[in-house]
Amino acid sequence: MSVLVVGSTALDSIKTPKAENPRLLGGSASHAAVAASFFAPVKLVGIVGHDFPKRYVALYKKHGIDLEGLQIVEGKTFHWAGEYEVNMNNRRTLTTELGVFETFTPHLPEKYKDSPFVLLANIAPALQHHVLDQMRKPKFVVADTMDLWLNIALPDLLRLIKRVDAFVLNDSEARQLTDDDNIPRALKKIHKMGPKYVIIKKGEHGSVLSGPSGLFIAPAYPLDKVCDPTGAGDSFVGGLLGYLASQSGSIEKNLRRAIIHGSAVASFCCEGFGLNTTTRTTKQKIATRVRELEKMVGF
Amino acid sequence: MSVLVVGSTALDSIKTPKAENPRLLGGSASHAAVAASFFAPVKLVGIVGHDFPKRYVALYKKHGIDLEGLQIVEGKTFHWAGEYEVNMNNRRTLTTELGVFETFTPHLPEKYKDSPFVLLANIAPALQHHVLDQMRKPKFVVADTMDLWLNIALPDLLRLIKRVDAFVLNDSEARQLTDDDNIPRALKKIHKMGPKYVIIKKGEHGSVLSGPSGLFIAPAYPLDKVCDPTGAGDSFVGGLLGYLASQSGSIEKNLRRAIIHGSAVASFCCEGFGLNTTTRTTKQKIATRVRELEKMVGF
Repeated sequence: MSVLVVGSTALDSIKTPKAENPRLLGGSASHAAVAASFFAPVKLVGIVGHDFPKRYVALYKKHGIDLEGLQIVEGKTFHWAGEYEVNMNNRRTLTTELGVFETFTPHLPEKYKDSPFVLLANIAPALQHHVLDQMRKPKFVVADTMDLWLNIALPDLLRLIKRVDAFVLNDSEARQLTDDDNIPRALKKIHKMGPKYVIIKKGEHGSVLSGPSGLFIAPAYPLDKVCDPTGAGDSFVGGLLGYLASQSGSIEKNLRRAIIHGSAVASFCCEGFGLNTTTRTTKQKIATRVRELEKMVGF
Repeated sequence: MSVLVVGSTALDSIKTPKAENPRLLGGSASHAAVAASFFAPVKLVGIVGHDFPKRYVALYKKHGIDLEGLQIVEGKTFHWAGEYEVNMNNRRTLTTELGVFETFTPHLPEKYKDSPFVLLANIAPALQHHVLDQMRKPKFVVADTMDLWLNIALPDLLRLIKRVDAFVLNDSEARQLTDDDNIPRALKKIHKMGPKYVIIKKGEHGSVLSGPSGLFIAPAYPLDKVCDPTGAGDSFVGGLLGYLASQSGSIEKNLRRAIIHGSAVASFCCEGFGLNTTTRTTKQKIATRVRELEKMVGF
């Protein structure tokens, strides 16, 4: 079954202690869509300007991503520039140029409206609502977010959380949202806000799923070298939903393996700048890391 | 088979945002010995002063701990006082009174020298060496440490690491020892220092074992309420070695389950002040948490 992905489509200029890479393909939707594409057909909703390189459109197409929902309009593509510190955990934003994102309203092509799996990747909650308003009867809706929306659009975000099946956020966002440092308690508090499933991402420490069958503690794939973690969280949730869409049987039954597939895809994302490594991986390589993770947690 | 535990035997005065508890039974050897005692006979090596409360001696005895190696001498028991911040991750030392520890030389009773399993719990590396020098032919030796010894006794510690089968340390100590933030790389660097097995403790994020059969990523048991984490790392390594000593078959085969048993015991430690909750738990309750952890990581 297919996955609809809405989120940001951007150009990222990324500086690390070792290198500098200007205007890479980036944005939450780009990372999530490519990650999902290893498992299921993907429909993309986003907006770019006329400066958006044709090779990036070709890259989406190489991954079989349906671009009917990608608006290409007059103006400049959203551009983000950031710099990582040596330990790769701390980053600071150098530039945010919204460009065509300032006036973006996601319009869903007719054939998108029946997509069974919907990923509301990180983007303003008002836009996530707008996409959801156009869907007919999705089977499973996942929303991701970022600290910015907790700061400037909390009421919208709280309304959104009520409308989704699974809500994904990282540990510091969970702390901010619940005013609680303790992850098991934070998970309970977020469930009370609505969603059946809550997933807290903890970067190199993996992730925790909370749902009807209790907690699932998932590892991150251990990496010797982290090149650029930008988009790892988006790849995680994209891989997760792509895998779910590819499997028969209940969500409940497949969600844990889906999370492990998300971890595996995210690990490739971290190994190269932007989408450089993710786009060069294969379903087979992802499957190998899933098997390795399985061996690493068994006892 | 039996476990010999050497380490500090202390009185801990612990302050948290919610409560203050003076002169609890503490020290690395106390936590580790009680944790190990749920699984195997334990022999304790340590030193206390005449102020050491008789009820604490009774507590050791209740756990079947052999006290022939516990020196009770003129002077004051080692006393540590510390205070935790609200998030329970940061603590600061208020007082360290070495007392009788200043002149401690661990003498092993004859019958201790054949103990197959040896836990060199956190104590000065010179004393850990001294214990090891007296052992005849131990089957499996584990050493734990703390940042203090990295700062003031690094040469001794580096010589010790070469002599043990497994070396246990926490993530910030691993970073300090290897000058590397990356855990997979830090593990490799520590292996080069000698030990076959390296275990990095990550507090609420669990632990990672590295050994001949690769990495094992172990979860911490998720707790809604952390009362006092003092001694959790000692309980972890004590539970681990106690479980190993109780099992037939190879170390390699049993080590992963041993780590999970260590995690389970450590979780009880965190739920009460000092040893209050650990000493009230049972082998059955520990087994229940091991089964829960098994469910939480399966996919």
